[in-house]
Amino acid sequence: MSQRKASADAGPATIRDVAERAGVSVASVSRVLSGNYPVSDDLRRRVMKVVRELDYVTNAHARSLAGGGTPTVAILINHITGAAFAHVAKGVEGAASLRGWLTLVGTTGDDPERELALVNLMRQQGVTAVVLLGGAYDFEEYQLRMARFARSLDAAGSHLVLVGRPPLEGDVPATTVDYDNEGGAYAMASHLLSAGHRRVLVLPGPAELTTAQGRLNGARRAFEAYGVPFPPDMVHHGPYDFEHGLRAVESVLREGSRFTAILAGTDVVAAGAMQALRSAGLRVPEDVSVVGYDDIPLASQLTPKLSTVHVPYEEMGRVALRAVADRREGGGTGRRGGDGAHLILGTHVVVRQSVRPPERQG
Amino acid sequence: MSQRKASADAGPATIRDVAERAGVSVASVSRVLSGNYPVSDDLRRRVMKVVRELDYVTNAHARSLAGGGTPTVAILINHITGAAFAHVAKGVEGAASLRGWLTLVGTTGDDPERELALVNLMRQQGVTAVVLLGGAYDFEEYQLRMARFARSLDAAGSHLVLVGRPPLEGDVPATTVDYDNEGGAYAMASHLLSAGHRRVLVLPGPAELTTAQGRLNGARRAFEAYGVPFPPDMVHHGPYDFEHGLRAVESVLREGSRFTAILAGTDVVAAGAMQALRSAGLRVPEDVSVVGYDDIPLASQLTPKLSTVHVPYEEMGRVALRAVADRREGGGTGRRGGDGAHLILGTHVVVRQSVRPPERQG
Repeated sequence: MSQRKASADAGPATIRDVAERAGVSVASVSRVLSGNYPVSDDLRRRVMKVVRELDYVTNAHARSLAGGGTPTVAILINHITGAAFAHVAKGVEGAASLRGWLTLVGTTGDDPERELALVNLMRQQGVTAVVLLGGAYDFEEYQLRMARFARSLDAAGSHLVLVGRPPLEGDVPATTVDYDNEGGAYAMASHLLSAGHRRVLVLPGPAELTTAQGRLNGARRAFEAYGVPFPPDMVHHGPYDFEHGLRAVESVLREGSRFTAILAGTDVVAAGAMQALRSAGLRVPEDVSVVGYDDIPLASQLTPKLSTVHVPYEEMGRVALRAVADRREGGGTGRRGGDGAHLILGTHVVVRQSVRPPERQG
Repeated sequence: MSQRKASADAGPATIRDVAERAGVSVASVSRVLSGNYPVSDDLRRRVMKVVRELDYVTNAHARSLAGGGTPTVAILINHITGAAFAHVAKGVEGAASLRGWLTLVGTTGDDPERELALVNLMRQQGVTAVVLLGGAYDFEEYQLRMARFARSLDAAGSHLVLVGRPPLEGDVPATTVDYDNEGGAYAMASHLLSAGHRRVLVLPGPAELTTAQGRLNGARRAFEAYGVPFPPDMVHHGPYDFEHGLRAVESVLREGSRFTAILAGTDVVAAGAMQALRSAGLRVPEDVSVVGYDDIPLASQLTPKLSTVHVPYEEMGRVALRAVADRREGGGTGRRGGDGAHLILGTHVVVRQSVRPPERQG
């Protein structure tokens, strides 16, 4: 709340000093330093030269780091190579960076022990918040573990945010940012059903994962609403990966089961399913319609472009960061201990080129 | 070097205590806790129950964390959504996890200021090493900045490792893990040339990026070796992304330039190029051959599967971590200040289905 005087003499160099010495505008310096805009090599070189001369960067950060003051958000993610949650992380870090905050990402490898070790480490380092991403496996154990994390972080003045994970039951000091997972699956299945598909192969994902359970429930509700049977032998569980989509479709085709559409649990699973169809000489969407879930960049890079459910992953990340920042700015106001906010973002179907009405009833 | 006694009474719970109480083998507990193997829900529940009862996990990590003892490796990466370097990070964290080390990832958004802030933060936190990933833009400024990082980390008892970046000149305390970038491009271009291609569209990447420069040089050398002209108008620079591959090929097709093959700077650029060809009614590889670079999973998920250059990204990550661990184990032996090791891993062409001899000379 205190105002700072801009002084070019005694204090550390300001962005204005850099701009003056480099003979460019403050906006240009900002563009070079932010790295978010294209700048000419010449401008970049000129500005960075002055930045080094004035030791501007170091000073700017020394001010805040000296007191351990740069707010830092830690994101914990199962695997660094998962596309969907990388976009959540991107959203968090984009919003953090706008505020001058730093972001760190830790990977747990689905290992609860590593997750705990990272949460402990983050607590000791005094991070502003810990954001945990991704579906949860074991509901009961998950609730206990997360409640413990939430309380331990809260006691240390930090805060737990769960993104794309089930909210915590009871009075637990954590914020949940979620998306309408089941609603998206309901809409996607309805899209296939309203195009006339009746025999749909469903590849919802790992049976024990909360997101896959929600996607399967959404699809089942849509079938019920349309009065279409939902035969269990048309549901094949498996990992959220390309290989699973490929193998599942290969095996169903070998068995000779008939279907006119595939409802895949993720875009990556859909990509695998499409490759299996093509290898079997089946065209998408002429012979079989295929839809995915997530709307990662891959979806619009496939041929045909994949109709899918848009999940606002990056927006979820931004919302999570904003929730933390708002909480911090309202700080010290005794909101601790029972806020347990639960924000749910909408999902929607993105219609592209992978769905057509079936030639004849499957 | 000191041996630890396994005691089940006074000291903290051991994995053996957990196994005994849960009535399962030590191997089973290890499988549940590692999260790397499929285990039944029942086994997982049983083991985690005992883990909670004995507070096994907490104890195990409390021991090392109490003294700030868990070695932690920080990886700094430009963008979290880049596939290739996510695999380096995966390699680092896999090798780190095997040793019980933790890994943190920070993203710089191509912003030198954020990079500096993260390196400073890591130095203060006493991380064992900072691993910087990805191509570099401005050679001179890069050398200065990295040398400063290396010395500042070294002074704090940490160590700088550069992966997929140019090595540092002079006596700088840093380790570089690199791959034979130019050699891979030479081999890939030779593969097209030996199939008979003479008019090749080259999309090497951003002109100012060191990796793109290396890939272009490798291709040029191959053309020289085959005595084939390398016309500058067939080289189109642009970002390493799908959109660039798509737009560049669309524009070259519009201009009416003839070519029988495309040498793309990355697999993602190749995917964009393939979509542009398909939209124009051209078949791969019957009408145009296409090759990529990186060998990310996408390459074998495209139709046809993409011939490309395999870069051992994950192995580079493992090698980087091992270099740090070896250094640490040999620690305190005055190897500081001038080790500057430079490890170069090999690359090779992976032949898949996207190359055929041209129908007639282009």
